[in-house]
Amino acid sequence: MIKLGIIGFGRIGRVHAESIMNYVKDAEVKAVADPYINEEGEKAALELGIKNVYQDHKKIIDDPEIDAVLVCSSTDTHSQMSIEAAEAGKDVFCEKPIDKNLAKIEEVLDVVEKAGVKFQVGFNRRFDHNFQAVKENVESGKIGDVHLINITSRDPEAPPIEYVKGSGGMFLDMTIHDFDMVRFLSGSEVEEVYAAGEVLVNPEIGEAGDIDTAVITLKLANGAIAVINNSREAVYGYDQRAEVFGSKGAVEVSNDKPSTAVLSTKDGVEAEKPLYFFLERYMESFAEEMKQFVNAVVNDTEVPVDGRDGIKPILIAKAAQKSLEENRPVKLSEIK
Amino acid sequence: MIKLGIIGFGRIGRVHAESIMNYVKDAEVKAVADPYINEEGEKAALELGIKNVYQDHKKIIDDPEIDAVLVCSSTDTHSQMSIEAAEAGKDVFCEKPIDKNLAKIEEVLDVVEKAGVKFQVGFNRRFDHNFQAVKENVESGKIGDVHLINITSRDPEAPPIEYVKGSGGMFLDMTIHDFDMVRFLSGSEVEEVYAAGEVLVNPEIGEAGDIDTAVITLKLANGAIAVINNSREAVYGYDQRAEVFGSKGAVEVSNDKPSTAVLSTKDGVEAEKPLYFFLERYMESFAEEMKQFVNAVVNDTEVPVDGRDGIKPILIAKAAQKSLEENRPVKLSEIK
Amino acid sequence: MIKLGIIGFGRIGRVHAESIMNYVKDAEVKAVADPYINEEGEKAALELGIKNVYQDHKKIIDDPEIDAVLVCSSTDTHSQMSIEAAEAGKDVFCEKPIDKNLAKIEEVLDVVEKAGVKFQVGFNRRFDHNFQAVKENVESGKIGDVHLINITSRDPEAPPIEYVKGSGGMFLDMTIHDFDMVRFLSGSEVEEVYAAGEVLVNPEIGEAGDIDTAVITLKLANGAIAVINNSREAVYGYDQRAEVFGSKGAVEVSNDKPSTAVLSTKDGVEAEKPLYFFLERYMESFAEEMKQFVNAVVNDTEVPVDGRDGIKPILIAKAAQKSLEENRPVKLSEIK
Amino acid sequence: MIKLGIIGFGRIGRVHAESIMNYVKDAEVKAVADPYINEEGEKAALELGIKNVYQDHKKIIDDPEIDAVLVCSSTDTHSQMSIEAAEAGKDVFCEKPIDKNLAKIEEVLDVVEKAGVKFQVGFNRRFDHNFQAVKENVESGKIGDVHLINITSRDPEAPPIEYVKGSGGMFLDMTIHDFDMVRFLSGSEVEEVYAAGEVLVNPEIGEAGDIDTAVITLKLANGAIAVINNSREAVYGYDQRAEVFGSKGAVEVSNDKPSTAVLSTKDGVEAEKPLYFFLERYMESFAEEMKQFVNAVVNDTEVPVDGRDGIKPILIAKAAQKSLEENRPVKLSEIK
Repeated sequence: MIKLGIIGFGRIGRVHAESIMNYVKDAEVKAVADPYINEEGEKAALELGIKNVYQDHKKIIDDPEIDAVLVCSSTDTHSQMSIEAAEAGKDVFCEKPIDKNLAKIEEVLDVVEKAGVKFQVGFNRRFDHNFQAVKENVESGKIGDVHLINITSRDPEAPPIEYVKGSGGMFLDMTIHDFDMVRFLSGSEVEEVYAAGEVLVNPEIGEAGDIDTAVITLKLANGAIAVINNSREAVYGYDQRAEVFGSKGAVEVSNDKPSTAVLSTKDGVEAEKPLYFFLERYMESFAEEMKQFVNAVVNDTEVPVDGRDGIKPILIAKAAQKSLEENRPVKLSEIK
Repeated sequence: MIKLGIIGFGRIGRVHAESIMNYVKDAEVKAVADPYINEEGEKAALELGIKNVYQDHKKIIDDPEIDAVLVCSSTDTHSQMSIEAAEAGKDVFCEKPIDKNLAKIEEVLDVVEKAGVKFQVGFNRRFDHNFQAVKENVESGKIGDVHLINITSRDPEAPPIEYVKGSGGMFLDMTIHDFDMVRFLSGSEVEEVYAAGEVLVNPEIGEAGDIDTAVITLKLANGAIAVINNSREAVYGYDQRAEVFGSKGAVEVSNDKPSTAVLSTKDGVEAEKPLYFFLERYMESFAEEMKQFVNAVVNDTEVPVDGRDGIKPILIAKAAQKSLEENRPVKLSEIK
Repeated sequence: MIKLGIIGFGRIGRVHAESIMNYVKDAEVKAVADPYINEEGEKAALELGIKNVYQDHKKIIDDPEIDAVLVCSSTDTHSQMSIEAAEAGKDVFCEKPIDKNLAKIEEVLDVVEKAGVKFQVGFNRRFDHNFQAVKENVESGKIGDVHLINITSRDPEAPPIEYVKGSGGMFLDMTIHDFDMVRFLSGSEVEEVYAAGEVLVNPEIGEAGDIDTAVITLKLANGAIAVINNSREAVYGYDQRAEVFGSKGAVEVSNDKPSTAVLSTKDGVEAEKPLYFFLERYMESFAEEMKQFVNAVVNDTEVPVDGRDGIKPILIAKAAQKSLEENRPVKLSEIK
Repeated sequence: MIKLGIIGFGRIGRVHAESIMNYVKDAEVKAVADPYINEEGEKAALELGIKNVYQDHKKIIDDPEIDAVLVCSSTDTHSQMSIEAAEAGKDVFCEKPIDKNLAKIEEVLDVVEKAGVKFQVGFNRRFDHNFQAVKENVESGKIGDVHLINITSRDPEAPPIEYVKGSGGMFLDMTIHDFDMVRFLSGSEVEEVYAAGEVLVNPEIGEAGDIDTAVITLKLANGAIAVINNSREAVYGYDQRAEVFGSKGAVEVSNDKPSTAVLSTKDGVEAEKPLYFFLERYMESFAEEMKQFVNAVVNDTEVPVDGRDGIKPILIAKAAQKSLEENRPVKLSEIK
């Protein structure tokens, strides 16, 4: 039974705490730390059976009983928290992105390597039942050599404009999951990116210097071509689909829905909309992610999403951003 | 926070214990009792945080701290355990069927009434997301007056022949859920039953005096006709579908699947099979069932499935059995 | 190139004429005869390239150039026209039902046999792409031994009450196609029928002595159980589905739709309704039916739907009617 | 009743002849001309009721009785035949592409304009039931402003290498239909094209200077982004899907299939593959295309696909080719 500490007890920190306390056999959360913790946060921790609630994350870093740390704090502190935890000899699970600054990420990875600790990055969609099924069909050889990947990834609602301003841009904030998915599903690396982007959902997003609609084409090392289409606002719900097409066939996954109900009336034949909220849609994937992290720590095996998996999508996002700005395909080798 | 005791800690007892400890806010399991409890069962209880594990159910009945009891013991003890718990003033959740004997059920319901305790029966499928969606579409009036109900209910695998022998027959053991579903979805009562049954899956089932394949037609008080088709063995998985058809339209639900993946190759276009195991298929419904029971106890409101809901499907099952034996439609008023 | 004559040039007569002139290579329609033919009917014939339009069907019977006759006249003349055509040595295609009177049907079949002519009955659904696909999966052994057949057959709109009065009852008029389908899909014979029927769509139908909603259970010689659910009015369109379930699996077909379009908005995910009109839904099956009749005539091979196929569904319909009236299962051997 | 002449009586010429003779009320084919006509071709014409079969197309051009001409000859003669027919005062239906040479196309359009004849181009997919349904949903405003278009267009089998060599490249030969579809569905014009292409299906295609796999991104005048993914070989069949996504929702169409049959066994749940052959898949669209051409001629109304619709996709194809060669986005204004 290992003991975990969670730094940052906002939405995602609580999701992980809940997963661990309810579903992960070999681990428990000993403490959470959040400088902005309030009464409601403390109560949430207690209800989950977490006995220690701190404001100061150092209390977690310094606790010799704590084996591993989940970094769930605000994005700009991910790298610092990861470094502190790793230097204290603790295994680290770090939410994505590690950092927006590539040099900073490299520093984290160096520290992690020197410390000899585990370092897993929070690309939870890899653990989703649908994307897992695609991956299995690709890896089993059922679709042969990969030729095309087509990902549809649309949020149900654009985020508040203040969030957009601090997000680092749609590619780093939202498409980063899709960039990871291209790597995950193809088993190959992205070499060149071309991004077409527009402001079609909300002009304020454009005024903030960002886009809300995009098509991104990626050329992969294995010759395959991947394409992602994004929107910040699909009014019918969270639209998360993928298809991999190859020499022997294709595999695709569609959206999860609240029920299989189909209503037929004189007005039409109606099915349910996709699950709207990402926590609902990816609930199980978060639990599976934790299970596999804990498993890697307990059994001293490889983590399923490592530091290199953490840095690559950020490189692709930066290439996409450069492509958008310069309206030309950009090679990944141009970045940094 | 109410305290629960679970009598019978086999498969279904553990499912409920897990649901309560993980998902139900206002309740905890204080104790479990099972005369056949073994080391593995004790460990399972401990891991869930249940501190008291007994062999003798009396320790639960006599514990004044315990507010409510879940009767999850073997079928032939359901009525006795329910009576003891009710007489001790505890609210009762009783797994289905209450008893195979109608007089015995009446006795339970009498004791419950006199004791003034809650009594909920374990028809978990009512809490399933799919059947809930059907019910909502019926109740909202979207399909108008109900004319036809068509239920497909097939197990993935026939049970062991020893189980069949003690099961009370397919109607009481398996179709009982579908009889309940007809009442739930129609909002009406069954008045007459005609059952056609065959032994097509396994001749040993026939030798044991039972059937494994059936079509049961039910005439309802509101004029609608319901029909259920059953098989003990659908080799492709647990097949659980329903359709309600009415004056303004129809609503139907199909099976839940492990993923939405569709594989297209030169051999065909292949989707996943239905979830195979009933615990996997109905997992969420068991948790929801517990939430609503606890909610009724805590807030002193009506239970969602009461004693009358417990006895009616048994009457229908007995009418179906009589219909099968006499090869004629049997009115429910003929039973008992 | 064989020459055909069509007796009765109403809706179905024209459908067959169109099929033959447009799709059937080895045949042409030389003449049509209809006592009620009007200018519009004559024009329709001419446009199809049919040169002879008569009022008197004798002109077709007596024409030595005409090889085969399609009997598409009103139901009460089917047997008489078939007899005249057969006695004139012509092969006969007769719309269903041959007659409502069993003795009359026997007479037709006797005449046909003596004359040594072909006699095909118009159960067009056997030639439908969906039901053909079910049949192929059953015959190939992919679903193993047949255990259950579940047919949903609902009209989009109840017929005018005057039509109902002369229809011979819903079983003979509408369900007869489904009875044929049970025989076709199962490859077995019906032995016993139980019918539950109600008047739920339109009380006038009840006043006319008929029903509009029914569930019919059929026990087959091979041990399988079939069940049909009927409604005279499915407001969402013509609902024509079937499932065959067996020891190795199940095959089912759903409705054809005008397009595959799916519209997702904040109000829901909407697909098209089933094709509404039977001619649209079964258009291709009518052409295929004609092709196979002509093929049997030209090559002197067995017709795909023979006299026995014509009489059996009528027997089943009569058993269903008796079952409804007497509220008990009725054996086919009881009929006549 | 108008009279048509067909120049070129290969596969597509016969498809049109069949459509007209069987489905189009106000037209008949008076003559076909093909320099390579053989006995089998003559027989096919006769069976359809076409009385005049020539080798020399001049006999059609010079026939004063012929109102309109279908140009179905080899691609390199399309423009010449169209010019001759137009100059003879005949309305023209010309198969796509009009020509590979832009100047030549302009010449055709000039001649047509001067002659004051109708000129329709053979983009049959616009008449397909599925794409029509998408168009209707877009035009009705149900999906709001168009943001994204995602087209999947994959052939079932790569063409013979000799065909590839003379095809003008995949974009002109195959993607041209998808370029037309983007214009049709969006109601907007393409302004810029970026094409990523690879040789993944067959290296011989690469040796012939062409590609077999591509993703093409198109920026439209209305701000929307379209993306097309192409493969020369989808082993599971002809894959023809489209989605239009907008501010109020999305509409998508999937593939047509031979039947709706779904087979469930222990090996999986299997549906039919998409229709394999383009003539089967688009059969009805060819008939509808002819109906609308004849309608425009008979009633002197606008043709549904005019000269401008013929030239635009060729410009886009050329931009795509240039983009592929220079690996950069290419503006349509750069072409010519």
